[in-house]
Amino acid sequence: MHHGIGFIQDLAVVMALAGVVTVLFHRLKQPVVLGYIAAGVIIGPYTPPFQLIHDEQTIQTLGELGVVFLMFSLGLEFSLRKLFKVGATAVVAALSEIVLMLWIGYEIGSAFGWSKMDSLFLGAILAISSTTIIVKALSELGLKRESFAQLVFGILIVEDILAIAMLVLLSGIAQTGELSAGIAFVTLGKLLLFMTVSLVIGILVVPRALNYVAKSQSDEMLLVSVLGFCFAFCLLVVKLDYSIALGAFLIGAIMAESRHLHRIEHLIAPLRDAFSAIFFVTIGLMLNPTVLVDYAWPIAVITIAVILGKIVSCGLGTFLAGKDGRTAMRVGMTVSQIGEFSFIIASLGLTLKVTSAFLYPIAVAVSALTTLFTPYLIRAADPLTRRVGHAMPRTVANVFGMYGQWLGSLRPASGEPTIFSLTRRIILQIAVNLAIVAAIFLGASYGAPYVTLYGSGFIEKWLPSEPMQRVVLWSGALIVSMPFLVAVYRKTKSLALLLAEISVQPAKAGRFTSAIRYAISDLVPVVSMLGVFLLVAALSSTILPPTGLLVAVLLCAALLLTVLWRWCVRIHATMQIALRETFEEQPDP
Amino acid sequence: MHHGIGFIQDLAVVMALAGVVTVLFHRLKQPVVLGYIAAGVIIGPYTPPFQLIHDEQTIQTLGELGVVFLMFSLGLEFSLRKLFKVGATAVVAALSEIVLMLWIGYEIGSAFGWSKMDSLFLGAILAISSTTIIVKALSELGLKRESFAQLVFGILIVEDILAIAMLVLLSGIAQTGELSAGIAFVTLGKLLLFMTVSLVIGILVVPRALNYVAKSQSDEMLLVSVLGFCFAFCLLVVKLDYSIALGAFLIGAIMAESRHLHRIEHLIAPLRDAFSAIFFVTIGLMLNPTVLVDYAWPIAVITIAVILGKIVSCGLGTFLAGKDGRTAMRVGMTVSQIGEFSFIIASLGLTLKVTSAFLYPIAVAVSALTTLFTPYLIRAADPLTRRVGHAMPRTVANVFGMYGQWLGSLRPASGEPTIFSLTRRIILQIAVNLAIVAAIFLGASYGAPYVTLYGSGFIEKWLPSEPMQRVVLWSGALIVSMPFLVAVYRKTKSLALLLAEISVQPAKAGRFTSAIRYAISDLVPVVSMLGVFLLVAALSSTILPPTGLLVAVLLCAALLLTVLWRWCVRIHATMQIALRETFEEQPDP
Repeated sequence: MHHGIGFIQDLAVVMALAGVVTVLFHRLKQPVVLGYIAAGVIIGPYTPPFQLIHDEQTIQTLGELGVVFLMFSLGLEFSLRKLFKVGATAVVAALSEIVLMLWIGYEIGSAFGWSKMDSLFLGAILAISSTTIIVKALSELGLKRESFAQLVFGILIVEDILAIAMLVLLSGIAQTGELSAGIAFVTLGKLLLFMTVSLVIGILVVPRALNYVAKSQSDEMLLVSVLGFCFAFCLLVVKLDYSIALGAFLIGAIMAESRHLHRIEHLIAPLRDAFSAIFFVTIGLMLNPTVLVDYAWPIAVITIAVILGKIVSCGLGTFLAGKDGRTAMRVGMTVSQIGEFSFIIASLGLTLKVTSAFLYPIAVAVSALTTLFTPYLIRAADPLTRRVGHAMPRTVANVFGMYGQWLGSLRPASGEPTIFSLTRRIILQIAVNLAIVAAIFLGASYGAPYVTLYGSGFIEKWLPSEPMQRVVLWSGALIVSMPFLVAVYRKTKSLALLLAEISVQPAKAGRFTSAIRYAISDLVPVVSMLGVFLLVAALSSTILPPTGLLVAVLLCAALLLTVLWRWCVRIHATMQIALRETFEEQPDP
Repeated sequence: MHHGIGFIQDLAVVMALAGVVTVLFHRLKQPVVLGYIAAGVIIGPYTPPFQLIHDEQTIQTLGELGVVFLMFSLGLEFSLRKLFKVGATAVVAALSEIVLMLWIGYEIGSAFGWSKMDSLFLGAILAISSTTIIVKALSELGLKRESFAQLVFGILIVEDILAIAMLVLLSGIAQTGELSAGIAFVTLGKLLLFMTVSLVIGILVVPRALNYVAKSQSDEMLLVSVLGFCFAFCLLVVKLDYSIALGAFLIGAIMAESRHLHRIEHLIAPLRDAFSAIFFVTIGLMLNPTVLVDYAWPIAVITIAVILGKIVSCGLGTFLAGKDGRTAMRVGMTVSQIGEFSFIIASLGLTLKVTSAFLYPIAVAVSALTTLFTPYLIRAADPLTRRVGHAMPRTVANVFGMYGQWLGSLRPASGEPTIFSLTRRIILQIAVNLAIVAAIFLGASYGAPYVTLYGSGFIEKWLPSEPMQRVVLWSGALIVSMPFLVAVYRKTKSLALLLAEISVQPAKAGRFTSAIRYAISDLVPVVSMLGVFLLVAALSSTILPPTGLLVAVLLCAALLLTVLWRWCVRIHATMQIALRETFEEQPDP
């Protein structure tokens, strides 16, 4: 009971001060996040009168829990369903924002003569807007239900995914020192693979498990199970060298498909609020106010660049994707700030020891300033649109109007099926199944050293020869992935059939039409499966058996497959239906 | 992001295992708490295959947060109002349970040849029943609304207070090695003083502040403010050398008087559930299963002693306080286990290094066993009562019946005012005001060294002479306590008047009746104030000015008082009304 006084004192100082500033900033009608950061600065080691925190390490650890809960909550609000709805517009706007801001950030850094790595991280820091700030600002202004707000949330979802990709890429660049296209491709491919597979398996398993737990009506059980899944998944992700933020976000997105989403959100909210307060305080703790004075000039430049850059890039992206000027202006002015992701990226740079110390306080200062302006900018969007509309020369306005009409004419009448929409579904299914197959073989290769390491005595006794160990591992992976391989084969066949129907027209092929069509639909899947085999062999090269044994294994597998074909089809269909059910289920109110 | 992997791994292991056992134990219809402890044993260092926790210290710290939230929640459920309702019966039952179990525990310890301190701590460990287990068991059996359950909750509240007194006393005994009546008296007096003053000031300040915060409708703000108050108060309590459990419980009890009680309970519940799970896991972590085998014999004896002892002591207490035999049996069988408080007391013994290492695992084992039996015992209460009723000889039954009738005849007809009920209120008010005055002077004495220490340069410049420093401090305390001193004077006067009316009857005093009455009502307050002065002087002896200066200060104060008398009366009345308002306000549904 008595040994934790220092810790309790730290927590008391943090929470009491946080409590005071939250009330104060609410009265001043400023975002509470700013208050937390200010509280951190007051508590921190750089400001007099004395050091108020004894054990900064423990508070930092609690702040890290804040990141987990914050990202988990973002994941819960993320929804694949919502993403499909806003779709293309959000992707275009988010991409144009991120690319432009990355470039602006990098150029500003270079202009100030900072190192390449500092400039790159500055670009990444400026690229992503703050979901927390935007959601708070919009709900405080009562605009959360407006259609432009829905679009903004879509953009934020796309940004979240791209931000995670950026986190991974930045870690890679920081470790290798440069970004080769090959490495970027492999890194992003692995990330995509990991995300796809965890989403598919997660959505199959987790919501079902939570439904079972939730039956008891006990909030405690549900909460502890949710936290159990959350931290276990985070651990897996961290073990795979991804950031804990990614893990928390993904498991949140998985749980977003649960029927009990609203109960989970309710239970997690207090944990998120308490620990994210600590997280934002720890940001202030790291902030040295003298750095802000020393770097007042870059801070001012970057703040203006963020506000103008985001309005232009995101607004333009929205407009180019076919929204009207008013919506575009509103969207641009809403996203014109940086926030929690910027801190995460900045602290990534610090922990990897590739960025200079001044970058972090600059990020915090810019975030604070842009956050301050956010509510005023959102409110100023409509008047500004009107003024711009009045001031704009008639010819320019006409060009903009014609662009909108031209875009509208491009769109197919709704309901009319295109080749694209027909094939898209099949291609998506093939991709997902391929991803699972790839993940199974990658997992087997990744796990191989552990198996031989931990079970060494046991395995060496029964399987002394190294090639035989490989045979067992590789055939195991093959058997597990069989239902998915069968599915890939069958989907490829139907895709080939479909394409053959379209491309081989009777007018040209004459009486050979159906023969050619069948030839294509038989040949394409076989060739594809050969490609799949080469891919799998490349991915699992570390556990691939020697050629002779490999052929034996493949022959056995082929034999097994003739027996198990129907079972494979059935098990895959069951999984697919289960996935679709979970996916289409609406959460309980 | 990357430095906390060990910590995340620990948390993942703890929460994932907790999640699994919570579901498992729910299926087995056993209390989840047992599952958490079992999970702790599995994770812990004493069981193979390998150590699953890297940084036990951090998990222990989080478990300590669990104690804070657990005690805070208990405090929230504690209510002075509820306590007054069940009143006497609960006090009698709880006292008889605690005294008997303390004695039984001490005797068992002595019989096994354990040291005095071990035996004493064993007694304390067995004395208090587990609120968590009882609330869960009763709500799972659907008996929460029955009248005996209300009585049980009353007993638990009284036990909580007595447990806290016991914690304080045990710390004292552990440090001095023995319990002298004088030290016990002073310790309990100080505790009572501290609790009274914090409750009064807390109930005046905290619910009002929370009402202000709650106006914003923001759950985040309310939660952070609640946590701010909670940890700040815990810090104060820890600084005064009380346990953090006491602090969390008291601030919870203070917030229980807030109008927003239910919102606060709702917000705290997830924090409590998450961290109390960790707390119970840490209990398992400390449990060495081999100790259980070595001490199987004491564990069995103590388990039987707890169950039989509590049924007899608490049941008998309930019966003696005037309830029927069936209720008494139900109450006795409901409270027949030990729980969280026992762990807190056991770990107190360990951290103070006065108990042997085996006491803690024994406490955990006995708690686990008695917790297991609780639901069955509650269900067995009614059948057992019937069987006992049948088996009881007629004469014994008659004696019990007559006892009930005799008790009933003792009670005054309701509504009839007695001297006791008339004076009780005034005496209570005098006591509370005296407590506040005492706390102000004690606080000034306690704070004096800090003032001279921190402000040393400043104070020495303006007040070089030590006696003048005392004068300033002491007169400051006097001025602050003036409204309460005036209140004490006025209440004493009306008490004296009341007593004079009753004791000086015209039949005896004849024509001097009113003169004597007035003399008493004038004299008693003056004599009392002299007593108050002596008390205050004794409490503030370290800052009491030398006699000459003291007389001067008192004269000045008297002069000031003539001017401020009306103001003092008014400010005190305002505070009293504010207190009563908060107290009588019902929480929002």
